[in-house]
Parts: sequence; structure tokens; C-alpha cells
Amino acid sequence: MGAVNTLELAQELYDLVGELYPVRRSLTGPGVRRTLEIVARYVPLDVVEVPSGTQVLDWTVPDEWELREGWIATTDGVRVVDTSATSLRVLGYSVPVHAVLRRDELLDHVHVDPAAPEHIPYRTAYYDRTWGFCLTQRERAALSDDRYEVRVDADRGPGHLIYGEVVLPGTSEAEVLLSTHVCHPELANDNCSGIAVLALLGRRLAARDRRLTYRLLFLPGTIGALAWLHANRARAGRIAHGLVVAGVGDPGPLTYQRTVHGAHPVDRAAAMVVPARGGSLLDFSPWGYDERQFNAPGFRLPVGRLSRTPHGTYPEYHTSADDLSFVQPASLLDSLTALEEILSILEGDATYRNLAPYGEPQLGRRGLYAGIGGERDQAEVKLALLWVLNQSDGTRSLLDVAQRSGLPFAAVAHAARLLLDAGLLERVERPQR
Amino acid sequence: MGAVNTLELAQELYDLVGELYPVRRSLTGPGVRRTLEIVARYVPLDVVEVPSGTQVLDWTVPDEWELREGWIATTDGVRVVDTSATSLRVLGYSVPVHAVLRRDELLDHVHVDPAAPEHIPYRTAYYDRTWGFCLTQRERAALSDDRYEVRVDADRGPGHLIYGEVVLPGTSEAEVLLSTHVCHPELANDNCSGIAVLALLGRRLAARDRRLTYRLLFLPGTIGALAWLHANRARAGRIAHGLVVAGVGDPGPLTYQRTVHGAHPVDRAAAMVVPARGGSLLDFSPWGYDERQFNAPGFRLPVGRLSRTPHGTYPEYHTSADDLSFVQPASLLDSLTALEEILSILEGDATYRNLAPYGEPQLGRRGLYAGIGGERDQAEVKLALLWVLNQSDGTRSLLDVAQRSGLPFAAVAHAARLLLDAGLLERVERPQR
Amino acid sequence: MGAVNTLELAQELYDLVGELYPVRRSLTGPGVRRTLEIVARYVPLDVVEVPSGTQVLDWTVPDEWELREGWIATTDGVRVVDTSATSLRVLGYSVPVHAVLRRDELLDHVHVDPAAPEHIPYRTAYYDRTWGFCLTQRERAALSDDRYEVRVDADRGPGHLIYGEVVLPGTSEAEVLLSTHVCHPELANDNCSGIAVLALLGRRLAARDRRLTYRLLFLPGTIGALAWLHANRARAGRIAHGLVVAGVGDPGPLTYQRTVHGAHPVDRAAAMVVPARGGSLLDFSPWGYDERQFNAPGFRLPVGRLSRTPHGTYPEYHTSADDLSFVQPASLLDSLTALEEILSILEGDATYRNLAPYGEPQLGRRGLYAGIGGERDQAEVKLALLWVLNQSDGTRSLLDVAQRSGLPFAAVAHAARLLLDAGLLERVERPQR
Repeated sequence: MGAVNTLELAQELYDLVGELYPVRRSLTGPGVRRTLEIVARYVPLDVVEVPSGTQVLDWTVPDEWELREGWIATTDGVRVVDTSATSLRVLGYSVPVHAVLRRDELLDHVHVDPAAPEHIPYRTAYYDRTWGFCLTQRERAALSDDRYEVRVDADRGPGHLIYGEVVLPGTSEAEVLLSTHVCHPELANDNCSGIAVLALLGRRLAARDRRLTYRLLFLPGTIGALAWLHANRARAGRIAHGLVVAGVGDPGPLTYQRTVHGAHPVDRAAAMVVPARGGSLLDFSPWGYDERQFNAPGFRLPVGRLSRTPHGTYPEYHTSADDLSFVQPASLLDSLTALEEILSILEGDATYRNLAPYGEPQLGRRGLYAGIGGERDQAEVKLALLWVLNQSDGTRSLLDVAQRSGLPFAAVAHAARLLLDAGLLERVERPQR
Repeated sequence: MGAVNTLELAQELYDLVGELYPVRRSLTGPGVRRTLEIVARYVPLDVVEVPSGTQVLDWTVPDEWELREGWIATTDGVRVVDTSATSLRVLGYSVPVHAVLRRDELLDHVHVDPAAPEHIPYRTAYYDRTWGFCLTQRERAALSDDRYEVRVDADRGPGHLIYGEVVLPGTSEAEVLLSTHVCHPELANDNCSGIAVLALLGRRLAARDRRLTYRLLFLPGTIGALAWLHANRARAGRIAHGLVVAGVGDPGPLTYQRTVHGAHPVDRAAAMVVPARGGSLLDFSPWGYDERQFNAPGFRLPVGRLSRTPHGTYPEYHTSADDLSFVQPASLLDSLTALEEILSILEGDATYRNLAPYGEPQLGRRGLYAGIGGERDQAEVKLALLWVLNQSDGTRSLLDVAQRSGLPFAAVAHAARLLLDAGLLERVERPQR
Repeated sequence: MGAVNTLELAQELYDLVGELYPVRRSLTGPGVRRTLEIVARYVPLDVVEVPSGTQVLDWTVPDEWELREGWIATTDGVRVVDTSATSLRVLGYSVPVHAVLRRDELLDHVHVDPAAPEHIPYRTAYYDRTWGFCLTQRERAALSDDRYEVRVDADRGPGHLIYGEVVLPGTSEAEVLLSTHVCHPELANDNCSGIAVLALLGRRLAARDRRLTYRLLFLPGTIGALAWLHANRARAGRIAHGLVVAGVGDPGPLTYQRTVHGAHPVDRAAAMVVPARGGSLLDFSPWGYDERQFNAPGFRLPVGRLSRTPHGTYPEYHTSADDLSFVQPASLLDSLTALEEILSILEGDATYRNLAPYGEPQLGRRGLYAGIGGERDQAEVKLALLWVLNQSDGTRSLLDVAQRSGLPFAAVAHAARLLLDAGLLERVERPQR
């Protein structure tokens, strides 16, 4: 990938974030539909609809919600707060209201983030019947009239939960699950970044030879993941590896959160990629994005999470400050590249059996070794050949070899290809460990 | 427990040490009987008697020994050393003697501790037929006459080994073994401190609801533990956790010595409590108190040891300097509190199965979650709920959850109770690990 | 071993290196025969011959090679390079040549080590049909004539690969494999040092009582090890421990490279010996000496390697600078002593079952314990007795006990002998782990 293409790709990612950002998403409703339409330009997307009221696992699919507008006005008609600039103004899933209220009555419905008082907080109440407005501290303090007129013009009623699903079949039935949430409104990093990176990753994967099958999910958080799991319980066993992609555009370094298992191949692949790109590794925690659902005890799917600065730890998190200025083209590209490197390791990982296991085979007569012995240079390829031969007893994968030898995975995989071509290895489909 | 009660409890512990201190204990005899009478004021104590000569495991119960007095006098009748102040003066289990001896003959029977020459050492000879006196270096040097009259007025003959046993039944048959040694004479830390702490711990446990059954043993060291094990081989399998309590009154920090297993629940509970109180953890060593017997290969009972400064590493150890001034009320209380905290973890530890394991259950509709989503505060209780749900697959205990999550055990146990009450967990009696 | 004997032994080792050094060894031929004749003065050596062309595992035994002389001369007969000082001058296994060549034709056959340009490099071409000369950079630069006469007077034709094998039977069939390579020409550390140390080690082992059987191999590198493995596949299962000995005379500290298993008894024994002598431990790598063959997946023999400075990491490596001035008598002796200490641990290692496992047995009545209790001194032997008793449940070896207790292996082994003599232990021949 040349430097020019790289710059173009970073810009394409950023432009897509820019297109997604103003869409007024919520858990359900037209914002999610519009978001999936945009994504469908990049990948062959199926849109799945689940009616409100459907029982999914322990939950019930909520009503659909559509916000038209919301405002607070003085009794003489001056709008002091409205949704013209951002839908963050209205508590998500607010029921309709149109009333003149006393100031104290109104304040019961006003949300401010004490930790980020200068920004509009992002708040929702999916499963309560209430309404509210989100303000900065200064805006709240300025509400000094005795009475205000408030209006939330919204529908909340039966409809559908929708999510997008993309399947890119490989030669193997083993699947990689890649998931991102599409339910947050005008927040750029959380999660226009994840949507954009996954959409372009999908386009690029679709253009390649694939051993693994890739399943990309664009889901409303929690209930969307649960709805997918509910519908796919029988298929869940095929998920060999998974990654939740979220919050991947901010300027901070990469972070990878391990699966609950902790040492699954996806964890070990990420451990080879993320620290080498300046990022860090975190242990699993049940507080996060949809990896919570995938890692639940009834499923235990091996799903890690790739983010940059972890959710909840940056001041812009879940506020109006998470806007387009907070997201960087270079960060988006770095996240996409890290994902591709991780997937490349998972694609290339395999377990082999050395077919000449009694001592070393004579590499020289197979053209795999320089003819003149005694030279100092122990080229990486020579070392990789010897490591693969030594370790390939049908129980250790190339990831194991790379980890133990300290060699780059690519060098180990290259050596395995040479040895396979030379008839010195056979692939073991069901390794005994 | 309020501050006043705390001070009162510390004083009560110290006063009990003060009452126990002057009792002239040995391996057998009236001192042990008197000690058990004092303990019986606090806990419902059974006194078990084992006749001299009884074979217990590889050992034989020794004769009973009663010391009336012992002295060294000049030939004109001036007593230069006698037992009026402390029975430490006479080698434990000395056979009777009354003779006039040459200075060199006497010196063969005089013990001095070269490492603590200014103090009277504590020495015994349970299984030899000999006699002796324990002196300071200065006292020994002052023996300048040619001849001395010596007298040990003692009985050593058939009788009984006795020990005290307390059972506080719980709702479960699983037992916690708590053991302390009662065979050391006028030594305050080793082990009036252990006896006092265990007596008051027993009184407090008796007043509580108990899941576990508690078995408290007040034993002469080694032979007492072996006698109990001999009589209870069939019951030993019920011992789920154990602690030897000894040397718990000195001013040093706590030390916990692991069981031979090393990662048993009692070890892991102690690892949560002792370092948090400024103490340290030691690996098992077969040199110590009765945990040696309980951890022997034929039993392998999971018995750790709580002490403060480890035996043998403080200069007062096994000398007359281990007196009431060496023991601190605050240290006794700290030891008792640490024990109660460890036992509280063992009481609360259990393994559960998440009954809604397919993704997260909807905590909100069960009142376990704030209704307004998106807020920053990830309260400990919320996190604990999620951790317990995620980890409770029937193989991991609450101790496992606390250890992995880094949350306090109490928070994890509280979350488990909330989830149990909400019908989201069931208890697993025989976890598969 | 007294100081005088120690000095004599160090000198004897060095003198043997000095005798081996000028022998012109190659993979096959008279140099190996002469080397084995020297070794046979120290140990009862069988010489095994394998005809050229024999298939051994994946390889074919090469033709025999004998170099008589080689030189480069000006067209007027002045020899500018010749083999009078060292056979390193000629590329090992060069085919005969006698011709007058243009300078550029000659330079195609000249080898220089760019990393050590001032020394003659050691180069071979066992499996190619070519010829060559090895020069310093300065010598190469001085080849300024248009034409040179070159001569390699050598035979390369059917013959035999030979290696030396010594068996020192013990009371057990379990074998220790000790191997060193004999195929390098005039290089002192690599590997006259290994040959000398193994020869004297063999002489000393032959004079001792042995539980284990020792099999010493003096092999041409790679093909020799493969030939032995080929002929001994059925017997390979008897190899309980193994060590390759190579590069053990240079002034650097000891290094032990672990078996591929990594925690085999030989690895654990070396870990007790080598760091205590100032050396270091390395993980297995498939780039090295014949441990590569022994650790191959078809055999997985537990063979570690003892060296000093690792091969390939010192500037003298595989050059004419690896001469007698590079090898130190003290280093040779230190290597021999380390080997003897490792073997002594392997000889003494065993698994026992405590026959009085219910608590501690009464050591006092068996004379294993001082009669007067309460003394401070916890002598190493007392502690070792208690550790062996506590750990000997039929699953843990004395190596395990030494490792866990931190006691010297010799103290643990001594305690085990005392307990065995007292009837308190029985040996477990096939431990369950």
C-alpha cells in the first residue's frame, strides 16, 4: 500500500465519519436506517428487522422512536434551547411533551454532566417513560424565568429494531465476527469512527482471497447484539474469533481488550500487533461495548475489542465535544491497519505436522539453505524454517511458533509456506493440544 | 463495631493474656488443665484426655509432668536460682533430682541461649530422661563455688495428655479448623496471645449465624495435634479450611504462611486481608507450629498460619523477654480482626450459576440498574453485578471473581446476594473446576 | 578435590586441547580418525563406521574427504597462500583443482569474513561440488596479479563417516547422553574444548559408582548425530537426560541452553548449577549444535547444551582467531566442574514416598533430631529432613524438594539418605505426576 493510497484511505475514512456524524441516530428509528444505507454503499449489507415487543433472550425489543424536534422556550416564545444543532439536546427516547412548566418542574427534566459542565451530555432512557433535555451548566444556570414552554415532538410506538449484517464467505466455515454499534447520535468517535472503519475494512476484505468467513455486524448497542445472538444461537459455535470495533478515531493510542478467555488466538494476534503500534493491552472487563454480550457465560464467544482511548476515560466521552474535531484521519487509518494486521495473522495461523521429524531434514538439497556452511549470518528466514520444523508436531500453531521464537508472524508464515511447498509439512485440521 | 467496643475488646484480649501468662504450662500437667479452665469461660470447651503410653500415629503419649519447684543453692543454703519467678528456670520435663554436685557436673545441666545471653531461655526435653536449669549468661558466670546443691521437685509418671476442643456447628458440615498451642509456660506472645485471640474469636463466632462449622483446638504442640489427628482421621476430610493461630500479640506486622497447597481458598482469603492490613505472605515451610502436622502428606489439610513476627526471628523468642511488656493490645485486636475478615470471606465464598447466561439480563427492570443510561459513574456495585454475572458459570467462586476483578470481596458478595434475590443466580454446591 | 589436583586437572584439559588443536579435522577423513585415537586414550571408545552413500534419516552420508595441501601461487611460482599453517585456508570439502586462473576467476573462489576481516574464516561446502580458499581481507586485496596458479590436492570419494561412542553402564538402564562435535578443523574453542572436557569427564565417570548409564558421543556435527539417531531409534527412549558440550574453553561465563521441553530435570539441574557459577540460562533455540537433532519433533530427547560464550556471538567464532590463546585452563575446568555438578544432581534425583505420612514421624527416637527442644538453630539438615518428609508423597522428586525449599540439592539428598536408612522413605520407581 503506497503512501499516496494510505493518505487517500485516511481521508476516505475521515470523510465517511463526516458523512455519518450529522445523522440523528438512536436505538431505533430513521437514523439507524439512514446509517445502514450509507454503510451499504461499501459492503453487501442485509438489513434485519425485529418487531417491537419481540422477546430476545432476557429482553424485549423496545418501541421505535422518532424525534422531530425539541425545544425550551420562554413564555414569550424565545427558544433558549433547541435541537436545531444537535439531537443530543433531547434525552434519548423521550416521550412527547408540550406544556408550560414552572422552572422547578422543568429542572427535574434537565441533565447536566458535572464532570464536563461546559458540554452537552449524551443521555438516554430507553426503557423508562420520561422526557428530558441535556444542557451545559451555563445554560441551566441561565434558566431564570418562572415558567417555560417545553416541547418534545417525537413518536414512540411499535415499529422495528434494525441491524445490518454482512457475510463475506471464505474457504473455511470458521467465522470472524466484527461488530460495531450504530445507536449513538451525533458523536464522532463514539461511534461514527467504528462504523466507518468497519465499512471500509469490509470493502477491503471483500476484495481479497479469504480462508476465514467474515461476518460484519452494524448493531444498536446491547439490544442489537442480543437480537443477533438470539437469532443465531445455533450458529454461534462457528465464531472462531471476534472483535468489537468502537471508538477508533480519537488521537490516543490503540487499546485492545482481551476476551474473557484471555489467551485466545485473537488475543495473541492482537498482542503481536497492538503494542508494536504503540498501543496497550487490557484484561477483559464486563463494562464496555457489545463484547459484554458475546463473552457472556451462555456464549463465551472469543470476542475482543479494539478501541483507542478507552470509553469513559476521555473528557469528550458522551458529550457534544466528541465532534469531528476530536477524530483524526491518521488515527482512523492506524485502527484500520491494526485490524488488518490482526486479521492477517488469524488468516495465516494454522497447525502443521513436520513430515521429516527425525532430526532436521536436509534443507540444502531442497534449495532452502545456502550451500556454503559456516557463515555468520543467521538470516531470519533460516531461523524461521528451523523453528517451524522443530515446533510443528501437530500440536503447535504458527502463532505458538511466532510467540515462542520471538520472530515476526509474517516470517514464520513465510517459512511454513516454503516448507509446505517442499513437501516437508502437512496441515493438521484438528490439532490436539 | 464502634471505637469504644474496639478499645474494650483490645483490653479484654490483653487482660486475658495477662491472666494466662503466669500459668506454669508444659506439654502435660496442671498448667494445661488450668489454661483450659480459663478458656472454658469463653467457649463451650470439651476436654479430651489421652492416657500416657497411648500410641498416636508414629508417637507415644508421654508421661505427665508436674513441677513443684526447682532451685540451685550454695552449700550453705543460699538459693542462687529458683523457680519462684518463672518455671522457665527448669528444663521442661526434667526428672527429679536432689544432690550436691561439683561445679562442672552442674554446668553440664545448665542451658544458656548464646543468642540472648541476658535472658532466661526456654528449653524442654520431653522425650529424654534428664534434668536441667536455664540461666542467663551472667548467672552462669556467677556460679563460682566448687559445689552446689540442686533440687528439681517434680513428678514425671503416667497420667494424661489433655486438649480442649470446641465445635460451633454451622448449617454446612464443612469445617474450619482453628488451632493454637497451649504447652508453652510463661511466654506471653508464644502463646498466651494465640490462646486469648482464639478464645475470644470463639465467643464471637458462637454469637453469629454460621454457614461453616468451626472447630477450635487448644492443643499441646505436636503431640496434641497428632493425638487429635489420630482420633479424627475419619473426620479429617471435612476440614475445608484451617488456620493455626500463634504468636499474634507482638508489635510486628501480621504474617500469613500459606498451606502446602499454596492457593487454597484460605490462602486466597488471607491474601486479600493480610497485605491490606500491612502484613505479608509467606510460602509454606515445614518448620513452624502445628500446621506442620496438618499439612503432612498423609493428611494435606489446608491449614495456613497467622502470626505476627515469625517464630524464631525476634530476639525475645523462647526467652524470658517474651513477657507481658512484649505484647500489645492493638496487636492482639489487629490479629483478631484479620482472622474475622478471613473467616468472613470463607463464610461468604460460594459458586453460582448465572440463570440468564445468554448475554446480560436486563437489570433495569429488576431495579438493579439506574434508569438513565449514558452516565459516567460506573459505581462499584454496578461493576460487581456485571462481574458476578459474567463469571458465574458454575466453575468460578466469588473469591475467583473478587481476585480477577480486583473488587473488594464484600462488594462481590453483596452483588451476588442482590442477584440471588432477583432470581438471576443459583448456588452450585459441587463446582466443577 | 584439592587445590593441587584442581590445577593439575585444568592443565591436563588445556594440554589435551593443545594436542587436539593442530589435527586437521573435517566432517570425515583422517582428522576425525586421529581425534578419536587421542580420545580413546581416556575412555573405552568404540569407533562406528557408516559407508558413504548410506541413507540416514533424511540425509545421505557424504563421501570421505582428505586434504593433502592447497595453495595459491603467482605465475612465477611464489606461494602467496598455502595450508602449511592451517587447513582453514581451504574451503572444507573442496574438490581437487590445479589450474592457472584469471584474477576475477580466482576471486569467485575466495572467501573473506566481512565481520572479522583480519582473520581467516572457516568455511565448508560438504554437499556442493566446488572449491575455494579462505583469506583475510588484506590477503585478498593483495591479489593484484592478472593470473594465479591454484592447487587443491585433495581426495573426495567413497569412504566412511566415523564417530566414537562410549558406554559407561550404571545400575539403571536410564541413560545420560553426552555429545560433542569432532568435525571442526584447527579451532580451539570450537571444539577442541568440548572434545577435551568430554574425554576427561568420561575418564572420571568411569572411575565412579554410577546409577545412571552414560553414553558419550564424539560425532561429526549434524550428519554424525543423525547417523547415531538413525542407528539407535529403538534405544532413544532410554535417554533420560542429555547434554551437548561445545565451546567450553573460552574466557566467557557459562551458558546453558534448555531442552525444547524447557523444564526437564536436566534443565532444572542446570538451573541450580550454572547461575550459581556466574553463568546464565537460555531458552531453547533450533539454531545451535547437535541438540537441534536430538530435540527434533520425531525424537524430543531432553538434551540441553552447555557452552560458555554462545556460538556466533564472539568475534573469534569460526575464524583463525579461535586458537590456543583463546582457550583458558580455568574455563575448561569450570565447564567440567559444572557438568559434574549437573550430573551429580541427576544421579541423586529420585522420588520417595514417606512411610510415616500421618503427621511428622518422631525423628528424635531415631537419632535424627537433637534431644533438647526449643533451641533457635534450625540447622539446614533438620529443615531438609522436614522438607523431604513433607513433600515425599510419591509425586515429587528431590529436585522438586530442593527447588521449592531453596535448600541446596546436596542437603536434600543427604536428608533423603538419612530418612531412607531410618526406614521412613521408600523409593518410587514410576512416580505419578
